[in-house]
Amino acid sequence: MFMTRWEPNARGRLELAALELYGERGYDQTTVAEIARRAGLTERTFFRYFADKREVLFYGSGMLQDGLVRGIEDAPAALPPIDAVAASLEAVADSLFEERHDLARQRQVVVAATPELQERELIKMATLSAAVAGALRRRGVTDPGASLAAEAGVAVFRVAFQRWVRQPGDPGDAGGETLAQLIRQSLAELKTVTAGK
Amino acid sequence: MFMTRWEPNARGRLELAALELYGERGYDQTTVAEIARRAGLTERTFFRYFADKREVLFYGSGMLQDGLVRGIEDAPAALPPIDAVAASLEAVADSLFEERHDLARQRQVVVAATPELQERELIKMATLSAAVAGALRRRGVTDPGASLAAEAGVAVFRVAFQRWVRQPGDPGDAGGETLAQLIRQSLAELKTVTAGK
Repeated sequence: MFMTRWEPNARGRLELAALELYGERGYDQTTVAEIARRAGLTERTFFRYFADKREVLFYGSGMLQDGLVRGIEDAPAALPPIDAVAASLEAVADSLFEERHDLARQRQVVVAATPELQERELIKMATLSAAVAGALRRRGVTDPGASLAAEAGVAVFRVAFQRWVRQPGDPGDAGGETLAQLIRQSLAELKTVTAGK
Repeated sequence: MFMTRWEPNARGRLELAALELYGERGYDQTTVAEIARRAGLTERTFFRYFADKREVLFYGSGMLQDGLVRGIEDAPAALPPIDAVAASLEAVADSLFEERHDLARQRQVVVAATPELQERELIKMATLSAAVAGALRRRGVTDPGASLAAEAGVAVFRVAFQRWVRQPGDPGDAGGETLAQLIRQSLAELKTVTAGK
């Protein structure tokens, strides 16, 4: 029987190696073989964790979506739709993102430089929005309200996230605030701009 | 010198022929040669109007974006951001879309059936949102308000548009309302869901 060696934190090492290489020589120019070598692991090990080099950047999407949906479903029934979405966004910000600030910044640089990855990111966000709308409908929110609250919630997240991953010192950087704090600010700003006349 | 024959409303005939064929046999299975033949025109004529068969479905994006941006820039200075966006959306709804309701419905069926076209549609909407945010900044709206109002405005448009192109009699169809009316309703709904607690 063929035995596979246990590699401590292989996923994390592969992710780190991939982000380094994408940053140094570009996403398109990097191969799986190079990622594995940089991580001190084999290609075979890489493919135990990721289907391809793109998935290194997107494997967290499922966790984000599941966490967000569960948070919306579990939010107190009295919370208005947009506040249920925002509360869940703040929770996933703390549980999934806050410890990964440097990785998220590195990832952002790579995605911003690669049209294929930007398209994948748009699809991920549209999928997320559809899942959020579904969770709101299960709370009894009817359409078009469920779709609009979902789209608005995902917009709040994107705008907050873009500030959070800005390089320190760049114009508009987050100045040390947590992603959850930026989400709260972004929600308050949305409420201001949509209050209108 | 080579003379080209003037073909009355060639663009419109090609668009109609393309939508028919995409609906009958699928987008992927349709060739430019077949579109031209159905329209009673030559392939050479097709390529005077469209770069490829996908552009038949997206050539209006530029007009939409230009009209929307101009409307936002020209809106009364006192209008709050989201209302400036909504007023401009209603104007383009009347000037660009209302007469093309059947074509828009046919197009919707094709896009919904083809992942490649759905991705293109997401990119178009993201580009539109960035252009709207730019127009709002030129009105003096600062970020993150400009980005959030733009994303929210585009969400209002998408939700209204999806109702407008639903087939008559389907659940949630627009029941004869104009796109501009649906945009007003969608904006009112957004204001309700974001008012929150």
